[in-house]
Amino acid sequence: MVASSGAPLLVASNRGPVSYAVGDDGALAAKRGGGGLVSGLSAVGPDAGALWVCAALGDGDREAVRQGVAEPGVRMLGIDPDVFHDAYNGVANSVLWFVHHMLYDIPVSPVFDAGFRRQWAAYETYNRTFADALAEGADEGAAVLVQDYHLCLVPGMLREARPDLRISHFTHTPWAPPDYFRLLPDDIAAALLRGLLGADRVGFHTRRWADAFVACCRDVLGEDAERARTTQVDVHALGADAGFLHERSRRPDVAERMAALREQIGGTDRAVVARVDRTELSKNIVRGLLAYRRLLERRPEWHGRVVKLAFAYPSRQDLAVYRDYTAEVRRLAAEINEAYGTDGWQPVVLHVEDDFARSLAAYRLADVALVNPLRDGMNLVAKEIPVVSDDGCALVLSREAGAYADLGEDALVVHPYDVEATADALHAALSMPRDERARRTKRLAAAATALPPQAWFLAQLDALRR
Amino acid sequence: MVASSGAPLLVASNRGPVSYAVGDDGALAAKRGGGGLVSGLSAVGPDAGALWVCAALGDGDREAVRQGVAEPGVRMLGIDPDVFHDAYNGVANSVLWFVHHMLYDIPVSPVFDAGFRRQWAAYETYNRTFADALAEGADEGAAVLVQDYHLCLVPGMLREARPDLRISHFTHTPWAPPDYFRLLPDDIAAALLRGLLGADRVGFHTRRWADAFVACCRDVLGEDAERARTTQVDVHALGADAGFLHERSRRPDVAERMAALREQIGGTDRAVVARVDRTELSKNIVRGLLAYRRLLERRPEWHGRVVKLAFAYPSRQDLAVYRDYTAEVRRLAAEINEAYGTDGWQPVVLHVEDDFARSLAAYRLADVALVNPLRDGMNLVAKEIPVVSDDGCALVLSREAGAYADLGEDALVVHPYDVEATADALHAALSMPRDERARRTKRLAAAATALPPQAWFLAQLDALRR
Repeated sequence: MVASSGAPLLVASNRGPVSYAVGDDGALAAKRGGGGLVSGLSAVGPDAGALWVCAALGDGDREAVRQGVAEPGVRMLGIDPDVFHDAYNGVANSVLWFVHHMLYDIPVSPVFDAGFRRQWAAYETYNRTFADALAEGADEGAAVLVQDYHLCLVPGMLREARPDLRISHFTHTPWAPPDYFRLLPDDIAAALLRGLLGADRVGFHTRRWADAFVACCRDVLGEDAERARTTQVDVHALGADAGFLHERSRRPDVAERMAALREQIGGTDRAVVARVDRTELSKNIVRGLLAYRRLLERRPEWHGRVVKLAFAYPSRQDLAVYRDYTAEVRRLAAEINEAYGTDGWQPVVLHVEDDFARSLAAYRLADVALVNPLRDGMNLVAKEIPVVSDDGCALVLSREAGAYADLGEDALVVHPYDVEATADALHAALSMPRDERARRTKRLAAAATALPPQAWFLAQLDALRR
Repeated sequence: MVASSGAPLLVASNRGPVSYAVGDDGALAAKRGGGGLVSGLSAVGPDAGALWVCAALGDGDREAVRQGVAEPGVRMLGIDPDVFHDAYNGVANSVLWFVHHMLYDIPVSPVFDAGFRRQWAAYETYNRTFADALAEGADEGAAVLVQDYHLCLVPGMLREARPDLRISHFTHTPWAPPDYFRLLPDDIAAALLRGLLGADRVGFHTRRWADAFVACCRDVLGEDAERARTTQVDVHALGADAGFLHERSRRPDVAERMAALREQIGGTDRAVVARVDRTELSKNIVRGLLAYRRLLERRPEWHGRVVKLAFAYPSRQDLAVYRDYTAEVRRLAAEINEAYGTDGWQPVVLHVEDDFARSLAAYRLADVALVNPLRDGMNLVAKEIPVVSDDGCALVLSREAGAYADLGEDALVVHPYDVEATADALHAALSMPRDERARRTKRLAAAATALPPQAWFLAQLDALRR
C-alpha cells in the first residue's frame, strides 16, 4: 500500500490550487487560485515534493481529469457529479456549515430523513475517495494536512489504511457548542468526531472553537473517550499575507477602481464605511444596513457626509434561503437610499459582482470597516483591511468573529445582534481622530500579520513532524 | 418597609391561581386554575398564610384589580396593558423563551434595536412592580419563591429592598448554552444573570439546565464572579400529580371523550399513537407528523391498523410565526390523510381546540405516546401519560426534553431532528409486546411521580428555609 515514490508532504482540500475551464476552441485552460493555503504551501518551496489532493469541482476540472491533464504537484479527483453534489451541497454546506455557524431555523430545519441518509453516504464516499488517494500517494511516514469540514472523515479513514502517516486536520469554520452539535443524528455526530480524532493533531483558528470541539467530544463520545484522546488540539490563528496584499493592492487596476469608487462616493470630504463579504447568512449584512440606517436616523450630522460601500458577493445562489437573503440586502439598501439619498448623495453603494481589485480599492479608501458576522471561523477581511489601508481605518468588529481574539484590543467591538450598539460604534468609528485611527490601524496590522499564511502552514507542519 | 403583618411565605408568578371574567351581567366571575404550582402550594395548607403575587392578565383580571376584588391569599397586580404587553410578549415570550429554546432563525432575528430597548424597559418595570409588591407584602425573614423567565430581575431587586428575605427562583424552561445566551445584548445578559443571583437559591428541572446556567454565569460575568457566587444552584425535577390525575381522568366527561375518540379511531383493533401539545415551535409537531408519514411509507403493515391522535392546542396565535406553524401542522395532517386514508380509516385525527378531558381520554387510550420536543424544560405530558394510561403505553421520548433525565431508561429515546430514527422508534413502540409495555409503563409512572408537585414545592421551601 505504501508508495515507494510517494510524496513526503500532502495537502487535502475540497478546492485545489488550480481550476480548469474549457475554452471556445475546446482547449483546457488552467487557472491558478489564491488564498491562505496556496500561500501557506509555498513556504515549503517546489522542491519539497508536496502533493495537493483536491476535488474536480466543475466541468472543466472533470474534463481535465478525463484527459489526464494535471499540474505538477496536484492530484485532482474525478468524483461522480451526483456524489459530489450530495456531499458538498447536501452535507458539507447545508448541514455542517449550518451546524457550526448555528444558522438553522430549528422549528423547521434540519429534517434528517432517508434523503439525508443518502447524502451522508455520498459524504462518506467523497471522503473515502480522498483518503484512498492520500493513502496511495503518501510516502512512508509522510505528513498529511487535511483541510476543513468537507473532509472530517478523512483522518480516521487514512489512519486505518496508513498507520505510518502523520495526519493533521484544520477546521476553518467555527465549531458548534455541544447543544447545537447535538442537532446532528447521534451516529453522524460520533462519526465526524471519530473521523477527526484519527488525526495526530487538529487545529482551529481560536481557542474558543478548539474548546467547543473538545466539549463536543466529551458530550458525544463520553468522558472516558475524552480522557483517552491522543489527538492534540491546537490553535493556529491564520493571519493576513502582508507581502501579497501590499503588492496586489498597488497595481493599476486597484487605482482604477479607487477612481471609480470616488466617483460614486462623490465629494472627497465624505467618510467611507466599507464592508466586503460573500453574501453568506452568517455575515450579518442585513443588520449592518439596519445599523447604518439607524446611524442616519439618529445622527443627521452624517447626512451627506458618509457613504457606505457594501460589497456583497454572491454565494450559494442555488439555495433559496441565500437568494432570499441577497434580495433582502438589495431591498434594504434601496430603501435607505430612497429614504435618505439626495441628488448629490447616495448613502449606500451596493456592489454584488465579485471583483477583488475593487475590494482592495475599498480597503484602501475606507475610513471605517464594518465586520459584524454572527459567527465566523476567522474573517480575513478584518485582518486584510488594516494591512492595506492608505490612511488608517477604524475597525468595527463583531466579538463573534474568530479575528476578535487577535484584533479585539484595537477594534471597536460590537455585539452583532445589537443594532443600536452597532450604530453607536459606527458613529464612534467615524468620529475617531485621524491620529488615533492611524495608531490603532498600525497595531491592528501588526496583530493581523502575526501569523501570515506561510508561518501558519509551517507551524502546523512543524508540530506534526515533531 | 417590613410589613409587621406580612406573609411568611410568598409565591410570585406571571399567571396566578385565579382569573376573572366579566359575565354578560357585568359581574365578575372568578375561576381557579390548576397546574404544578397551585398543587405545590397546597402542600403548606391554608393556615400557612401564604401570599401569591401575580399579574392581571386579561380585561377581567384588570377589572377585578380596579374593583378591589381579590381571592384570599392572592395579590393581583394591575399593570399598564402596554407595559405588560411589552414585558410579556416583547421580552419574555419573544426573546427569553426563544433564547432558552434556541428557536431563532439567527440570520434574520433577533434584531436588538431601539424598539427592543423600550420593551426591555417595560420588562424592568414589570419586574419592579412584582418586587415592590413582594417587598411590601413579606414578613421579616419570609420565604419568597419566584417563578420563571418572566421574573428574572425580581430576586435582585427584592434582595436590595429586603436583605432579610429568603429568596428562591425556579426556571421552568431550559437554559441556553453560553454561545446562544450571548445572542442577548451584553448588558441585558448580565442583568438577567445578576437578577437571578439575587436569590439565595435558583432551581431547574434538570442538571443539564442548571449546568448551562452556571456556564452562562462564567461566560458573561466572568470566572471571578462565578467563584464568588453565593447563590446555590439546585435541581428539582417536577413530577406528575398522581392523585389529581387518577381522580380527574376517571370522571364521566373523560369517558365521554374516550367514546367519541373511539368513534373517530374506528375499529377497536387499531393501535393509537397520541401526542398532546400546545402548538409551540419547540414541540416539534411537524417532524412528528413527518415521522408518522415515514412509518406509513416504510411499513405498509400498519395501514388501517394505526391512528395518530394529534392534539395541537393553539398558542401565541398573535405571533405570525406561530400561526404559520399551526397552518403547516394542519396542511401536513391533511396531506397524510389524503395520501393514505381510506373510506374506513383516517390515519391522523387532528384536534386544535383545547380540551383537557379529551387530552386525558387520549392518555388513557394511547398505545404509544409521542413526545419529541426540540428542547423542553421538563415536559409534563411525558410524565402524565404513564400515570393515566389504562393498559400501558409505550413512550417515544426526545432526549432533549427535561423529562428524559427521569424517564430515559424505560422510554424509547429519539433524536428529535432524526425523522428516520423517530419512524423506527414508532414502529418499535407499536410492536412492543403488551406485557413489556405494561412493565415499562409501571416503571415510567413511578419515575414520573417521584417528586410530585407538593413534594417539589416543599423541597424548595425546606432548602430555602434551612
